[in-house]
Amino acid sequence: MTQTIAEIIPRFAHLSDWDDATLMDVIRHARRLKKMQFRKPVASGKMLGLIFFNPSLRTRISFETAAVHLGAGTSIIQPGQGVWSFETQTGVIMDGDCAEHLKEAVQVISRYVDVIGVRAFSAMQSLKEDLEDRLLQDIVRYATVPVINMESAREHPCQALADGLTMLEHLEEKTKNRKFVLSWAPHPKPLPMAVPNSALEIAARLGMNVTLACPPKMTLPDAMLENVRSHASKNGSQLSIEHDQKEAFRDADIIYGKSWAAPLAYNDPDAESKLRTETCSNWTITRDLMSITKNAAFMHCLPVRRNVVVSDDVLDGSDAIHVDQAENRLHVQKAVLMKLMGLSS
Amino acid sequence: MTQTIAEIIPRFAHLSDWDDATLMDVIRHARRLKKMQFRKPVASGKMLGLIFFNPSLRTRISFETAAVHLGAGTSIIQPGQGVWSFETQTGVIMDGDCAEHLKEAVQVISRYVDVIGVRAFSAMQSLKEDLEDRLLQDIVRYATVPVINMESAREHPCQALADGLTMLEHLEEKTKNRKFVLSWAPHPKPLPMAVPNSALEIAARLGMNVTLACPPKMTLPDAMLENVRSHASKNGSQLSIEHDQKEAFRDADIIYGKSWAAPLAYNDPDAESKLRTETCSNWTITRDLMSITKNAAFMHCLPVRRNVVVSDDVLDGSDAIHVDQAENRLHVQKAVLMKLMGLSS
Amino acid sequence: MTQTIAEIIPRFAHLSDWDDATLMDVIRHARRLKKMQFRKPVASGKMLGLIFFNPSLRTRISFETAAVHLGAGTSIIQPGQGVWSFETQTGVIMDGDCAEHLKEAVQVISRYVDVIGVRAFSAMQSLKEDLEDRLLQDIVRYATVPVINMESAREHPCQALADGLTMLEHLEEKTKNRKFVLSWAPHPKPLPMAVPNSALEIAARLGMNVTLACPPKMTLPDAMLENVRSHASKNGSQLSIEHDQKEAFRDADIIYGKSWAAPLAYNDPDAESKLRTETCSNWTITRDLMSITKNAAFMHCLPVRRNVVVSDDVLDGSDAIHVDQAENRLHVQKAVLMKLMGLSS
Repeated sequence: MTQTIAEIIPRFAHLSDWDDATLMDVIRHARRLKKMQFRKPVASGKMLGLIFFNPSLRTRISFETAAVHLGAGTSIIQPGQGVWSFETQTGVIMDGDCAEHLKEAVQVISRYVDVIGVRAFSAMQSLKEDLEDRLLQDIVRYATVPVINMESAREHPCQALADGLTMLEHLEEKTKNRKFVLSWAPHPKPLPMAVPNSALEIAARLGMNVTLACPPKMTLPDAMLENVRSHASKNGSQLSIEHDQKEAFRDADIIYGKSWAAPLAYNDPDAESKLRTETCSNWTITRDLMSITKNAAFMHCLPVRRNVVVSDDVLDGSDAIHVDQAENRLHVQKAVLMKLMGLSS
Repeated sequence: MTQTIAEIIPRFAHLSDWDDATLMDVIRHARRLKKMQFRKPVASGKMLGLIFFNPSLRTRISFETAAVHLGAGTSIIQPGQGVWSFETQTGVIMDGDCAEHLKEAVQVISRYVDVIGVRAFSAMQSLKEDLEDRLLQDIVRYATVPVINMESAREHPCQALADGLTMLEHLEEKTKNRKFVLSWAPHPKPLPMAVPNSALEIAARLGMNVTLACPPKMTLPDAMLENVRSHASKNGSQLSIEHDQKEAFRDADIIYGKSWAAPLAYNDPDAESKLRTETCSNWTITRDLMSITKNAAFMHCLPVRRNVVVSDDVLDGSDAIHVDQAENRLHVQKAVLMKLMGLSS
Repeated sequence: MTQTIAEIIPRFAHLSDWDDATLMDVIRHARRLKKMQFRKPVASGKMLGLIFFNPSLRTRISFETAAVHLGAGTSIIQPGQGVWSFETQTGVIMDGDCAEHLKEAVQVISRYVDVIGVRAFSAMQSLKEDLEDRLLQDIVRYATVPVINMESAREHPCQALADGLTMLEHLEEKTKNRKFVLSWAPHPKPLPMAVPNSALEIAARLGMNVTLACPPKMTLPDAMLENVRSHASKNGSQLSIEHDQKEAFRDADIIYGKSWAAPLAYNDPDAESKLRTETCSNWTITRDLMSITKNAAFMHCLPVRRNVVVSDDVLDGSDAIHVDQAENRLHVQKAVLMKLMGLSS
C-alpha cells in the first residue's frame, strides 16, 4: 500500500485526524501558550491562506491574531467577494457563473501559502454529502500544504479544541465522568450540525458523560451519535439522549447551548422551520433552567442570539464562560499552527 | 467612588479624553515621528482590531500603515461584510437580521487584540443619541482594551489631531489668535457633523479665533458650539458665527471646507435636502473666495467632491494643503497608538 | 527638456518600461529567489498599497505573500467595497455616485505606502483609450511612489514576467526560435486583451517564434501586433497569424490558451457575443489538438473555465504547467518589488 501526498501532509481537517493523546497534547500546549501570553516570531516569513465560503468573526480574527503573535502573515480569501466564485463539481462544462475551479484555486494557493484554513458550511442540500464532508475532503485532496478545518459541513474541530481547553480550565482538569449537556435551543434560521457534533465528540473524548438534550425530532443523525458513543465507551463514559430539557439539566456541570436544524430540513425545509420556530420555541435556555444544574457553567460557540437561544441574565451572569471560550480559540489555534508547521515555543 | 474598568483603561474616544497639554504632547510627538520617518518594530506582536461600520480610505490605510511601521498587525472588521451584523440595542429578542450582539463582539475582540479602533457614523436618526455618542460609548463600556474613535456620530478626534499638526506645520507653531474659518459647502448627501465639530474644537484648543461660516439654517447644534466657545475662552480666543461667506473669508489664515447636513435632517430629510442642494448651492468654495483671504491655506478632510464642495482650481492650487493633512493622519495615529500601548520611540 | 516626477520614479507599469536586458535580469533574479526559497525581512516596515478595481485571486495572494516573505505589509483597496468609489474623469462636477476623485486618492495613498499596485481591467468601452492605457497612465501621473501594473486595459506585465520565467524553466533557457502558440479559446464572457497582448510580447522578447492562432475576426488590434512584430524582429524571430487551429499547433513547443473578446465587442457587443460563443465554439483546446504539437507544454494565466477553454484531460495531464506558471507570479513579483524598492537579496 502506498500513501497519497494528501495522506503524508499533516492536517487538522477532522477531529479523527488526531488520537486522544495528540488532542490532549495540543490542548495542554495551548494552555501553556495562554499562560505564557506567547508572542514570538517563530513563524516569521510564513503565510496562512484562509478561505471563507461563509461569514466569520472569531475564527478570522483569532487566526489573524495567532499569525501576528507568531510573526506570520495571512491572506483572507472570500470566494465571490473580490475573488472568483469556485466551481466545486468535477467534470462539468464551466459555462456558468463560476470563473474558476476549486481544483486550480487550491493547487495555486498551496504554492503561495504554508497552511490553508477553510470554512465551508453545509449548504443543507445533501445529508449524505455533509456526513462525508465532501467539499472539505476535496480541498484536502487538492492541497499540497496542511489544511485546517475552520468549520465544515460536519465538524468544527478548532472550536472543539477551544471547548476542550475551556472545560479543562473550568473543571480544573477533572473532566472524567462530569456531566456535559448539549442543549438544543430555538433559532430563526436552520443552522448546520458541525458545532454540536464536534462539541459532543470532544466532551466524550475528555471522558465526560454526555447528554444530548433536544426535542425528539431534533436528534442528530445516527452516524454522528455512533461516533460519540464509541468515543465515550473508549473513555469509560456514556452518551444519553434526553427530550425533557429540565431533566437533562439536573446535576449538569456544563451546559453547552446551541441551535441546529432538524435533519428534516434536508427534505422539507418549511416543515422544519415550523417545528424549530414554533413547536420547540420554549427551549430557550433561562436562569430558571440553569438553577436546576450543579452550578453548571454556560458555554456557547457564538454568535448567539440573546433572548432566543439564551436569556440575557444567563449570558450576563457569572456562570457564563462563553467569552473565555471564544478567547481560547486564539490559544488552541496557535498550538495547531505550531504543530502543523513543526514549530516549538 | 470606585472606577469602572472602562475608566481605568486609556482610550482616545473623544477629544475631551485628553487635556490641552496632552493633546499638544501627542501632536508634537507625531511631528517628531514624521521628521524621523519613524519605522521601528516597537509594537512587534501587537494587534489592532479596526471595526468599520462605514466606508473608509484614509483612516483604514493610515492605520494599517501605522501598524506596519510599528511592527504590529491589523484585523479589519466590517459588520455585515463577511462578518455577522451586530445588534446594538440592549434587552431585545434577537430574532431579526442581526446574528450577534455588539456586547459579545466587543468583549471577544478585546480578548484577541491590543487596541480597538471604531468607525461608526451617525445614522441621522436621533440628534440626542448622536450628541451623546451612544454607540461609541457602548463600545467603550464593553471593551477591555483601549478604544480609538475613528469617527463617531459626534467626533473625529484622529482627524482633529491631523488637522492640528497640519496647522502647526503650516503656521510654524504660531496658531494663537490666527483666523480659522470652517466654511460649509454644498453636497448631494446629508453628511454627519463629526468632522466640523472636531475641527472647530481643535482650532479653539490651539488658541485660534474660530469662525463658523454657514447658511443660517446650517448652524451646528448649540451643545457643539458651547463646547467650542468654552475651549476658545480658556485659550484666549473666540468663536464667531458668520452667515455671509465672503465676509467670513476676509483675513482668514486657514479655510477648512466641509459639508454637513442641517440639523433639520433629523426631522424633515426632504426639506433639508432641498435646502442643502438648492437654496445653498452657491456656497462652493472658489478661487475668487480664496482671494479674499490673507493667503489662507485650504484644508479638507477628504473625500471631497470636486466642483461641488470646492473648485478644481483651489484643490489643484499651491495653497491647498489637503494632501499634507491626509498624510498627517498617519503620523498622529502612530503617536496615539504608541501612547495607548505605552511605547516609546 | 525637464523630467516630470512621474518620469523619475521607477515603475513597472508597462513592459516597455524595461528593455530586454532589464527584463531578463529581473526574471533571472526571480529564478534565483525561487531556488533559494527566499524569505528575508529586507523590506521590513515597508508598505504596499494594492488597488483592485477588479477581482483577483493569484495577483492578490501572490503579492500579499511576496510582501510577507520580504517582511513588508500590504493594504488592499477595493474601490466601492468599503472604500469610496473613484471618479476618474477630470474637470467634472462630482454630484453623482463617486465620493472621491482618483487624483486625491492616489496622491494620498502615495503618502502612506512605498509602492502602489493597480488592477484596472478594460471596461470594453473605448478601444482607443484601452490602447493608450489611459486609467493606468493617470494613476502613474498622480502617484509619487513606484506603480506596478497588476493588469490594466492593455497589459499584464507581471503575468508576462511569470510566463517568461515558466518558459525559461521549461525550455531550460533555450527559448530562441522555439515555437510559441497563443491559441484563442471560447468563453461565455468578453474578456479583455491585456493577457494575450503581454504573452505575445514576452514570447517575442525571449526570441521565440510567435504564432497567434485565432478565428479571423478575433485577431488582436494592429497596434498590438505591430509592437510584437517589432520585438520579434529585434530578437531574430517572427510573428505569424494562423486561423487554422490544427495548423497552428503543429510543432509547437508551448501552447498558451486564452480567450479574449473580438475587437468587434467595442462596437457591437451582441454580434461579438454570438461570434464568440456560437461561431467559434469549436476552438476548445483538447488532448487531440495537443497531440499535434511537439510535446508542447500547456500554459494558461488562470482562472480557466474547464471544458470550455480547455478540456479536463489537458489541464490534468502532465504537460500542463499552469500551476507552476501561477506559482511563478510570486517569484517574479518579489523580484519586481525588490528592484523598485532598491533592495538586494
